[in-house]
Amino acid sequence: MIFGVHPVEELLLARPRDIAVVYVATGTRSPDIDRVVRLARDRAVATEYRPRQLVAELAGAPAHQGLVAITGEYGYATLDEIHAAAAAAAEPALLLLLDGITDPHNFGALVRSAEVLGAHGVVIASRHAAPVNGTVVKASAGATERMRIAEVPNLLRAVDDLRAQGLRVLGAATQGDCPPVFGVDFRAPVAIIVGAEGQGMREAVARRCDGLFHIPQKGAVASLNASVAGAIALYEAARQRREFVIDGARRA
Amino acid sequence: MIFGVHPVEELLLARPRDIAVVYVATGTRSPDIDRVVRLARDRAVATEYRPRQLVAELAGAPAHQGLVAITGEYGYATLDEIHAAAAAAAEPALLLLLDGITDPHNFGALVRSAEVLGAHGVVIASRHAAPVNGTVVKASAGATERMRIAEVPNLLRAVDDLRAQGLRVLGAATQGDCPPVFGVDFRAPVAIIVGAEGQGMREAVARRCDGLFHIPQKGAVASLNASVAGAIALYEAARQRREFVIDGARRA
Repeated sequence: MIFGVHPVEELLLARPRDIAVVYVATGTRSPDIDRVVRLARDRAVATEYRPRQLVAELAGAPAHQGLVAITGEYGYATLDEIHAAAAAAAEPALLLLLDGITDPHNFGALVRSAEVLGAHGVVIASRHAAPVNGTVVKASAGATERMRIAEVPNLLRAVDDLRAQGLRVLGAATQGDCPPVFGVDFRAPVAIIVGAEGQGMREAVARRCDGLFHIPQKGAVASLNASVAGAIALYEAARQRREFVIDGARRA
Repeated sequence: MIFGVHPVEELLLARPRDIAVVYVATGTRSPDIDRVVRLARDRAVATEYRPRQLVAELAGAPAHQGLVAITGEYGYATLDEIHAAAAAAAEPALLLLLDGITDPHNFGALVRSAEVLGAHGVVIASRHAAPVNGTVVKASAGATERMRIAEVPNLLRAVDDLRAQGLRVLGAATQGDCPPVFGVDFRAPVAIIVGAEGQGMREAVARRCDGLFHIPQKGAVASLNASVAGAIALYEAARQRREFVIDGARRA
């Protein structure tokens, strides 16, 4: 993560291929910024306009001058760091596990939804997922830089680890011979597994789950996009957790 | 909609530019189909593999031979046809209105979710939306061919028309000074309005709504993709309508 007019400019001159995308704060116009944006275009580096507050948060420092370049190796998190984030927020853990999501647009979209809907981390398997690359960063609208993403060698072992940590592991099934997503309790610590579009989770992964759920759909032919299915499961978890508080308050 | 080996082949030879995409049934291999797929590639026409059942449903006839070409002018529906579809299904109407969704990927994704989650129709304004073109058809995974999409000259007038037909019009707000989506009743006939990413609905459209709701989000900076926000609202409507039935059955 490089920010500020001159650092971003120097990086564009020296190593443009290391840059996934340059975020420019909207409403920020100056000869300096115009020059950097032109330079990025000359070097075939993507520039995207984002709210100033997001650019500031990505930079993590006030001296961003409206410019942040997302660069280099992605800094993956560990499962422990994800657990720690849930503990620090004093919230029951909410994790999203991706099995076989190889499309970078879907992966990025899922990271974005996970971040907005309050998940503490996303877990991918190194061999059955798209890596976090420039396309994923862009598809996530920058959420990859704020979300904890853990890359594990073996998703089945990660499922066992999470269960040992007290999480229930619930898988999104593509067929309806399991409860609807709103019939499953997501309020305790939980990891949600979403598989690839059409085929869903691998058999072995589905068998390792504590439970399965499906999102009710009309018609036998149609199916939801994987990133939409994941977002709906995360929304349902968020809904239940908030309604629980509201119900509790009403009862008190 | 053209289907069958020879009709699709002739169209590829005569008017390839009129074809948005050729759907090929998965698991269907034959010299004829291979030849058509090669021809499509030569003519720079997109081919995509889809489940046989979907290809059959798109063709609407058994003689599809595993091939359907999506072509030509899109056949928009009318608001009356959408109302008729809800009446025929004996369901309270569920409509999705799009205000200013100009990105064809988001538009297609919303049509796909609307179809899968049981909406009776999608309404767009001719001047503030992407038209149904090849990109939209592909992004919808073919759902444009099964979903009723009405194009109206003026979305505000359509809102008035829908209200006169007894629908409540509820808008997805980008800010939280309105009830959460799960605090709003979607069980009676309803039209949900979703605006463009970031800016949301136009002011004039928001003012014309019977009510607004928001999808609870963490952090002030992040926001959901417009197609995800629309899908979550439709899911919430489907959830409430099904839970209502379950509750009714339990009470009986």
